[in-house]
Amino acid sequence: MGSKPKVTIHHIAEKLNITASTVSRALNDNPRISEATKKAVIKAAKQLNYQPNNIAAALRNGKSHLIGIIIPTADRSFFASVVRGIEEIANRVNYKVIISQSYDNYEKEVQTVDALLSARVDGIIVSIGKNTENFDHFKRAQEKGIPLVLFDRTTDELEVSQVMIDDYLGAYKVVEHLIQQGCRRIAHFTSPKKVSIFKERLRGYMDALRDYEVPFYEELVVKSNLQLEDGRSSMEQLLELPQWPDAVFSASDYGAMGALQVLKERGIKAPQEVALAGFGNEPFTSFSDPALTTVDQFSLTMGRITAELFFESFKTEPDKKLVPQKTVLKPELIIRGSSLKTEALKKDREDSSV
Amino acid sequence: MGSKPKVTIHHIAEKLNITASTVSRALNDNPRISEATKKAVIKAAKQLNYQPNNIAAALRNGKSHLIGIIIPTADRSFFASVVRGIEEIANRVNYKVIISQSYDNYEKEVQTVDALLSARVDGIIVSIGKNTENFDHFKRAQEKGIPLVLFDRTTDELEVSQVMIDDYLGAYKVVEHLIQQGCRRIAHFTSPKKVSIFKERLRGYMDALRDYEVPFYEELVVKSNLQLEDGRSSMEQLLELPQWPDAVFSASDYGAMGALQVLKERGIKAPQEVALAGFGNEPFTSFSDPALTTVDQFSLTMGRITAELFFESFKTEPDKKLVPQKTVLKPELIIRGSSLKTEALKKDREDSSV
Repeated sequence: MGSKPKVTIHHIAEKLNITASTVSRALNDNPRISEATKKAVIKAAKQLNYQPNNIAAALRNGKSHLIGIIIPTADRSFFASVVRGIEEIANRVNYKVIISQSYDNYEKEVQTVDALLSARVDGIIVSIGKNTENFDHFKRAQEKGIPLVLFDRTTDELEVSQVMIDDYLGAYKVVEHLIQQGCRRIAHFTSPKKVSIFKERLRGYMDALRDYEVPFYEELVVKSNLQLEDGRSSMEQLLELPQWPDAVFSASDYGAMGALQVLKERGIKAPQEVALAGFGNEPFTSFSDPALTTVDQFSLTMGRITAELFFESFKTEPDKKLVPQKTVLKPELIIRGSSLKTEALKKDREDSSV
Repeated sequence: MGSKPKVTIHHIAEKLNITASTVSRALNDNPRISEATKKAVIKAAKQLNYQPNNIAAALRNGKSHLIGIIIPTADRSFFASVVRGIEEIANRVNYKVIISQSYDNYEKEVQTVDALLSARVDGIIVSIGKNTENFDHFKRAQEKGIPLVLFDRTTDELEVSQVMIDDYLGAYKVVEHLIQQGCRRIAHFTSPKKVSIFKERLRGYMDALRDYEVPFYEELVVKSNLQLEDGRSSMEQLLELPQWPDAVFSASDYGAMGALQVLKERGIKAPQEVALAGFGNEPFTSFSDPALTTVDQFSLTMGRITAELFFESFKTEPDKKLVPQKTVLKPELIIRGSSLKTEALKKDREDSSV
C-alpha cells in the first residue's frame, strides 16, 4: 500500500515562494515575521491541508519544552541541588529537564552537547568540566540558536549569562576564621586545572593570609583532583614535612574528608593539632566526627536564578541582542567542630584537670 | 526564494508503492525486510537523490542513539553509580544517555516518560518511584515500541526485563550478623510503601529472627520515608519505649545515619548499647564514626547488566517475542564499627581495667 506524501512546511514554502524557515517562524507566531506573511502562510497551510504532527511540529518550531543540563556528575549534592532548583522554575512554565553528565571528560562533554541537540532541547544549561579548555562545542550550539546559560564552573570565553558564587569571598572567610582560631601554618588543597572556581579560592586563601600577616608557605599548597583519595594523599604528603601544618583548607569537601580520615587513622587530633575546613557543604560534612567546617553555596538558589536567566533569553525582542548577565551569589561560612580549635583545646584542658 | 521540497522516505515509498515505515526499516537494515526490498529501496533512494539529514533520519528510522533513564533522584550514590554502569556499556556502542528525575513523585514520573519520548529516545531504563502504583505511563511507552528495562525498584506488572539485587538475602545477612554479635532486640526501619525492595528487606529481617529464634517485637518495626530526618525521629521513637532495642537495622543508610546522630547526641554508645546497620553502602557510611555496617548493592555491575539487557532487546528476531529476563544480583554484607558490639565491649573492658 502506498502512503501519500505528507504536506510539509516545504510545500507551503514552495507555494508562497518563501523559505521553509519563514514558514516555520510564521506558524510559530514569531514576532520577526510580518502579519501579512503570517496570514498568507496560515491560508496556504489550510489550503494544502497541512497537519503538523507533534514531533515534527516540535522539530519545526523548535519548541520541545525540554531544557538540557550538562553537569560534570549528578553524584554530587551540589550539582543535584542546582538541578533541583532549575527544575522547580522550569516545571512552573511547563518545561522539563533532561540531564547529561560529562564526567569532567572533554570528549564526553562534546558528545553530551550533541546528544542534547539531537534530543531537540530548547536550550542548554552547563557547568563546564574541569578539563575543558576549548569551548567550540558550546559555540556550535549557540550558532544553532540554542540559548546557553552557565553556572558555577563558567568561562568568559562564551558570551552568555552566568551564575556563580563568590568563591574568593568564601575562601577568604574560611581562612580568616582559621586564623582567628589561632592557626598560623594553614595548608590549602587546590586543583591544577584552570577552572576559575579553584583559582578564586586560592586567591581568597592567599589574600586572607596576606591581610592578617600570616606567613604563606609554598610547600603547604597541594594540587590534586580534590577527590577523597586525593585528600588522603595530600594529607599524607603534608605529614611528611619537617613541620606539620596546623590547619588545612581544602577547596573541596571530599579533600577535607580524606584529610580527616588520615588524621584519625594516625591518631592526630582534629581540630586540636590540625584544624580542617572544606568547601561546598556536601551533606556528609555534617555526618563526620568532628563535623566539617565548610562553605555553603546556596545551590538551590543558584539553580533557580540560572533557570530564570535561561527563560529571560526567551523573552528577548528579536531586534535586540540579549546582554549576558553575570550573577554572583554570596556564600556562607558554616562553622563546625573540625575548625573550632580554641574550644576543643579548652575542653581538653578542662577534661585533663578533672 | 523558494526552497525545493526535500525528498523524503514518503517519496521513495510512493515510487515503490510500499509504506514509508517499510522504507525506513529497509534503510535501517532491519532484518524483518527482505533483501529484495532493501535493494529496491536503496536504488530508488539513489535515483531520487534522497539525503537524510541527521535529525530527520533519526526521526524516520527511530534511532536517535539516545537512552533515557528515569531515576527517583540522581543525588544518591546508588543511582548515580548504576547510571555510570549503564553509560559505560552504552558508550561502547555509541549510545548516549540522558537522565530525568522523578523525585519519587508519580505525576513527575509520568511527565518524565513524556519528556523522554519527545526527546526521541530509543528506549527507557527505569527505577520506579516509591509512590508509583499505576504503570500505564510505562505501558504507553511500550505500545509505541520503546523498549523498557527496569532496575532495582521494579514491578511484575510490566512485562519487561528487570535487574535487581536479592534484597531478602541482604537483609537476612545483616540481621544474622547482628544476632551473632549478641543482639536480641533488633529494631527495623522500613517504608510503608509497596515497593518490593522494602518488602523484601522486611521479609529477610523477619525470617532471620525466626530462624535464629530471636523474638520479633511489633513495636520495633518503624515505618517512614527512610531519609536522614526520618531515621532521627524513628530512633527518638524507639528511645521512648520502656525497653530500648539493642540494635537497629535500617532499610536505608540515611535512616541508619539519622539514628546514629541521635544516639551520639544523647551519649548512647554505638555499637555497645545500640548496634547499627544500614543498607546501600552510600559513600558517607564509611565517613561516620563509627563507620556504618551496610549492604553493598554492586551498583556499577547492576548498571552494566541493565544496559546489556537493554541492548539485547534490540537484537531480537522480528518473529520472536523477547522473553523478559530477571537478573538477581547477590548483595554483600559490609561489616564496620557500628555493629561490632562484641569487639567494642571487649575493648571497653580492657580500657577500663588499665
